[in-house]
Amino acid sequence: MDKSTTIGKRSKEAWYELAKLNTAAKDSFLEKLHDNILKNTSDILKNNEKDLEEGRKKGLSPALLDRLKLTEERIHSMANGINNIVALPDPVGNIKEMKKLPNGLLVGKMHTPIGSILIIYESRPNVTVDAFALCFKSGNATILKGGSEALNSNKALISIIKDSLKESGINPDVVQFVDTSDRSIVNNLLKRNEYIDLVMPRGGEGLIDFVVKNSTIPVIKHYKGVCHVYVDDKADLDDALKIAINSKVQRPGVCNAMETLLVNKHIAAQFLPVVGKELENHGVKLLGCENAISIMPELALATEDDWYKEYLDLILSIRIVDDIKEAIAHINKYGSHHSDAIVTEDYTKAMRFLKEVDSAAVYVNASTRFTDGAEFGLGAEIGISTDKIHARGPMGLEELTCSKWIIFGEGHIRK
Amino acid sequence: MDKSTTIGKRSKEAWYELAKLNTAAKDSFLEKLHDNILKNTSDILKNNEKDLEEGRKKGLSPALLDRLKLTEERIHSMANGINNIVALPDPVGNIKEMKKLPNGLLVGKMHTPIGSILIIYESRPNVTVDAFALCFKSGNATILKGGSEALNSNKALISIIKDSLKESGINPDVVQFVDTSDRSIVNNLLKRNEYIDLVMPRGGEGLIDFVVKNSTIPVIKHYKGVCHVYVDDKADLDDALKIAINSKVQRPGVCNAMETLLVNKHIAAQFLPVVGKELENHGVKLLGCENAISIMPELALATEDDWYKEYLDLILSIRIVDDIKEAIAHINKYGSHHSDAIVTEDYTKAMRFLKEVDSAAVYVNASTRFTDGAEFGLGAEIGISTDKIHARGPMGLEELTCSKWIIFGEGHIRK
Repeated sequence: MDKSTTIGKRSKEAWYELAKLNTAAKDSFLEKLHDNILKNTSDILKNNEKDLEEGRKKGLSPALLDRLKLTEERIHSMANGINNIVALPDPVGNIKEMKKLPNGLLVGKMHTPIGSILIIYESRPNVTVDAFALCFKSGNATILKGGSEALNSNKALISIIKDSLKESGINPDVVQFVDTSDRSIVNNLLKRNEYIDLVMPRGGEGLIDFVVKNSTIPVIKHYKGVCHVYVDDKADLDDALKIAINSKVQRPGVCNAMETLLVNKHIAAQFLPVVGKELENHGVKLLGCENAISIMPELALATEDDWYKEYLDLILSIRIVDDIKEAIAHINKYGSHHSDAIVTEDYTKAMRFLKEVDSAAVYVNASTRFTDGAEFGLGAEIGISTDKIHARGPMGLEELTCSKWIIFGEGHIRK
Repeated sequence: MDKSTTIGKRSKEAWYELAKLNTAAKDSFLEKLHDNILKNTSDILKNNEKDLEEGRKKGLSPALLDRLKLTEERIHSMANGINNIVALPDPVGNIKEMKKLPNGLLVGKMHTPIGSILIIYESRPNVTVDAFALCFKSGNATILKGGSEALNSNKALISIIKDSLKESGINPDVVQFVDTSDRSIVNNLLKRNEYIDLVMPRGGEGLIDFVVKNSTIPVIKHYKGVCHVYVDDKADLDDALKIAINSKVQRPGVCNAMETLLVNKHIAAQFLPVVGKELENHGVKLLGCENAISIMPELALATEDDWYKEYLDLILSIRIVDDIKEAIAHINKYGSHHSDAIVTEDYTKAMRFLKEVDSAAVYVNASTRFTDGAEFGLGAEIGISTDKIHARGPMGLEELTCSKWIIFGEGHIRK
């Protein structure tokens, strides 16, 4: 049997057992896992050090090494993450929209786990525990394929998870780890539709393109964030300044940070110099359209390509637009349909922006930085979907379930 | 520009306009379309006759010719279908789960259209109107690729739709018709992720496999139904008889008809001869496992392959199982996760069956034939999804929408 088939088959078989577990059993396992991770801190750190050493030899960038690095504090925060998941309500088995039909049939939709989920991610080893724990609580089996730079750290974490499962009397196949950088196994896994129900790639453009092109299994992408703030001519400019600065500089390396600032032409001469200076004070490098440059000659000229860019850095493109229509058209064309905000005191324009901007999260008078499972009250998130199908925006436990129709009859037959 | 790019681009551009239309404007167009279809009945019939003639020349089966055939009555029923859609509430713009967060942000999810939907289907020309009208009402643009046998009928219908759109001042590109049997265009369309948001194939296994293998766009499949009725040893056998007969013979050629009957061994000797005789009276050809044959020697032996089969005909496989556990395992292994029923008076077994059978619709004491958008109270359906992602089971207007997060702030920034 081909290796991907073995992995898929075991995962699906273990899933049928996992799907039957009640919440108390799942929580009790997660508590054990929390304790076992803390107990094995020194072993995890030892293995993480191996990855760091190899990373340094390979010449990984300081940013990448930092993402790879675990510390006692980071391991504590990983374990705390599990406690947070224990505290969340389990959506599995909840029934919504139970209706009595005219013929007396009682029909509703029950939340159920999705099944076996393949998660492909890059260097951060904490994803191994976070993603597994969220999927486990929502009753899903996971097949994890982490980045090769984190191989030793991930193996240590997986071994703690598997031991904890065994201690709890749960089939350890509910988590499977793909411990090779051989892409052909991943390629084959992406075609095991009979066993695997969903693929979630988390990482850069190259990884996501590879998965989308090669998977015959449904994919939910966690893709890039080219986010915008549009400052309308009816904006409260104090709010606009606060929101623009916060959206760009509070944490520039994440997907919900602003990459392009759109400014209405009627307030550009007044607002641009103020926001520009403040952004420069925060170390932001500015690019602009020709009209923006006519107001702030020190700006570099933005190229057509720049409007599509996710800088993930202290760089910002600025464009002056004629009106809200042009702002919305720009966002829908160049954006990545992630998080976009309008700053305005005009009611009609606020409602229009909400309706017409085709993004996962659309804001009025707030920073784009709030797009996050914890901030939105989901408790925790496995990522932020930039897809429209099934889940859009932050994905919490409920988004990791699907539903089935359940029907209670009394000998009903169709006429 | 490659043809698929032109089609996709036009569709997405028209969609942005369509998504802004309010319900009254959409309904008023649909009423016009209803009238124009009735007015053009003779033209539709003339074009349909061309398809039938070519079909007869090509030697299409009587069943296929019947599916292809339009009559005055069928055109009336097509137009009535549009009226039903007008009567349904429009889900677009509805907001659910609006919450006030501790920081004062107001966060909710708004139903929005999905975007541009590519629908690939086979011979029945009424799908052209049904699918378009459902997508239109839910604010989605459609790219339709019908079966080549129905080309003339479909062209006539599309031309009526386009004329009605123009009369209503709506961009006629909200519907695009692929009027060629050239598979390379379809193959290219399946990769136009930048313009097309969803693909829905409706048809046989070959078509669906082709789409799943070649699409990089999310796919929701309307796949086959290998449906089961499990008669438990605690069943009311009068109900069991009624439900088994109805599930098999009321309309054997559809996806929610039963293909395999599972009978608990403790009641097999009593129940099998009764249900077997009644099925035979309805002209059903029976296959069985060895144990079933030991009770009814006239049964043909079912092979391993037969348990996977969707007969869509008056043929039924019968298997005797030891208990509910074996019944559930059989359904999850051989079934197509469509519609499955248990007949039992035992409360615990009923609840277990609901929980553990991994299907789109799971029944207690009712016929599998109820899996249908109209029966479930959705008003109308575009099909029955056998996928788990986004929509499972009958898909109505709401399942043709997705959601976006909307956030009302008052100058909120993230700390």
